[in-house]
Amino acid sequence: MERIPILKMGRFLLVTIQVDLYDRLALDLEANIIGAITKNNASGVLIDISAVSIVDSFMGRILSNIASMARVLDAETVVVGMQPAVAITLVELGLPLKGVYTALNVEKGMELLRSKTLSDDAESDD
Amino acid sequence: MERIPILKMGRFLLVTIQVDLYDRLALDLEANIIGAITKNNASGVLIDISAVSIVDSFMGRILSNIASMARVLDAETVVVGMQPAVAITLVELGLPLKGVYTALNVEKGMELLRSKTLSDDAESDD
Repeated sequence: MERIPILKMGRFLLVTIQVDLYDRLALDLEANIIGAITKNNASGVLIDISAVSIVDSFMGRILSNIASMARVLDAETVVVGMQPAVAITLVELGLPLKGVYTALNVEKGMELLRSKTLSDDAESDD
Repeated sequence: MERIPILKMGRFLLVTIQVDLYDRLALDLEANIIGAITKNNASGVLIDISAVSIVDSFMGRILSNIASMARVLDAETVVVGMQPAVAITLVELGLPLKGVYTALNVEKGMELLRSKTLSDDAESDD
């Protein structure tokens, strides 16, 4: 079971990270998410990391990378479910999660994605 | 990372199984799902097994157990994303997944849950 499933939920994709993201798995995940955005014409990606208890600079970079790649394809990325200890570690390590929006849980993350993608639509209408 | 996250999405709970369900993890998952149904007053559970490539009688029993326990708490269970090989194995092993509804993917599973829980509401109104 070495594949992280990407679930399609309406206009958004949902990814739950439950395993350690070592090199190959992380690169595969990046490629699969970008592929799924294109294939499903998705406007947002929700990444749940509530099962992740240890974060390092590699994991932080992967999340930033996914957000940057998604943005090029006109999709926003929201990371949800971060454990308090992970938030503390991220700040102490000086990892800013550049370009990544965060929300407390999946429901709030969905709301954020909806508002972000709606305002994008409104802007592009101008 | 030895905990399978249970995501709340409106009235439903979403669980993605990405790791091998050995004994303790499976029992914890049962307990956590039942706890989450009670806590969130959920009316449905969606279990995604698209990352599961090997199924055995233990896994089949766990899914049936979760469905039976959820039903006692007035919640329906839908298993989605089953790989073709898993479906073949289940039938060849003679495992019926008793009491478990299935759907092709998360979106169809959500629809099924909505229709199941709506018709339950309608029945209880009579």
